Amino acid sequence: MDTDVPLVVPEVNPEAAFGHSGIIANPNCSTILLAVAAWPLHKHVAPISRIVCSTYQAASGAGAAAMAELEQQARDWVSGSDITQDIFQRQYVWNLFSHNSPIDSTTGYNEEELKMIRETRKIFNEPALHTTATCIRVPVLRAHCEAINISFAHPVPDLEVVARQALSSAPGLRIVDDRGTNTFPEPLAASDQDDVLVGRIRSDLSAPLDTGLELFIAGDQIRKGAATNAVQIAELFLER
Amino acid sequence: MDTDVPLVVPEVNPEAAFGHSGIIANPNCSTILLAVAAWPLHKHVAPISRIVCSTYQAASGAGAAAMAELEQQARDWVSGSDITQDIFQRQYVWNLFSHNSPIDSTTGYNEEELKMIRETRKIFNEPALHTTATCIRVPVLRAHCEAINISFAHPVPDLEVVARQALSSAPGLRIVDDRGTNTFPEPLAASDQDDVLVGRIRSDLSAPLDTGLELFIAGDQIRKGAATNAVQIAELFLER
Repeated sequence: MDTDVPLVVPEVNPEAAFGHSGIIANPNCSTILLAVAAWPLHKHVAPISRIVCSTYQAASGAGAAAMAELEQQARDWVSGSDITQDIFQRQYVWNLFSHNSPIDSTTGYNEEELKMIRETRKIFNEPALHTTATCIRVPVLRAHCEAINISFAHPVPDLEVVARQALSSAPGLRIVDDRGTNTFPEPLAASDQDDVLVGRIRSDLSAPLDTGLELFIAGDQIRKGAATNAVQIAELFLER
Repeated sequence: MDTDVPLVVPEVNPEAAFGHSGIIANPNCSTILLAVAAWPLHKHVAPISRIVCSTYQAASGAGAAAMAELEQQARDWVSGSDITQDIFQRQYVWNLFSHNSPIDSTTGYNEEELKMIRETRKIFNEPALHTTATCIRVPVLRAHCEAINISFAHPVPDLEVVARQALSSAPGLRIVDDRGTNTFPEPLAASDQDDVLVGRIRSDLSAPLDTGLELFIAGDQIRKGAATNAVQIAELFLER
């Protein structure tokens, strides 16, 4: 069902961005984090044929007032007061819920999920890239996490090793993947950092040999997910 | 890579359970919730060929002391004290982290994820069922959630409608899926309930037409994930 009109994006030439004088859009924050991790695999390992993504999104994506409400809810809970529910209309502390963007009545996907599908196609310049996402808000203050399942168009011998190499030399990424101490990307470790943390790198046991990869990432929604990325786009233009 | 020895399970006959006098194991809590939602689809819609699951697991899965530590961390945070970290060795409030079970050095999957793969095969009596999982602990007290992506072995016309019918008539499930009010399964709503809540039911936009389905579920880890399920197994035997 990847032929729906709203999901089609025009073919674009990334290099063309340097030749125009209009507005350059900064992508959606969840999309940026996904693209930073998936692009080096698509470019250097093998073409990605499909992405299945589940997000664990922080309050910060809904603004400073949302972060303040979540913090207030913790204080309310500790003091035994009624839980403040002005913004999300529900208890958020000790809870999680489907992303609060409008839901498309045709597909049942919410706007955040459709952005991840559409914008990844645009950024990768792959108008038919197959992506699906489930976007969830978790009671975390300011960094988003994503569980990412990637299918490649063809087998890559020693996929896990090759993927790890590609990720370790990619810009904007830092590998955090220590199985011995159970140290992997966490939102607190990603907060106030410019790099996207990537870990849980492993071959997908459900996919044919050497065609699937699992990742878990964390990135600061305010920095790399918004302000830092805008600055980096500007820097790219200044360097030309 | 689905041929690893540790993932192979013996062929079993579910009916055979009624003929023996040994111990009946209660499955892993994440696996129970997944199986309750996926089985009616596998049985009544079409054979499932692959499952990609991301979990959002509560503190309760690690026991009462873990729940108490998470609550204590909230009190510590509100009062500005050092955060108590006796059990998880990290800040859990406002954070999330990869499931704290041991990691298999061959596959890179943790024990919780391998249980979901192995036990689902056993419960479904499908020794080659392709499942992958990423298990994450979120700062929630007692109900687990799961984002579930399901691929079917063949297309099913009107998949979303057919799947919704199968789920609505399945035992142990309650559909919570109101797109207009953004009301979907949440851990607080699932807490202290016997039913598994299922919602975000939609055709997978990344899959070939009518072959993929997305779900989001929530279920009480202590009830359906443990005690209730054990009681229901016992009741099944008493009814025979």
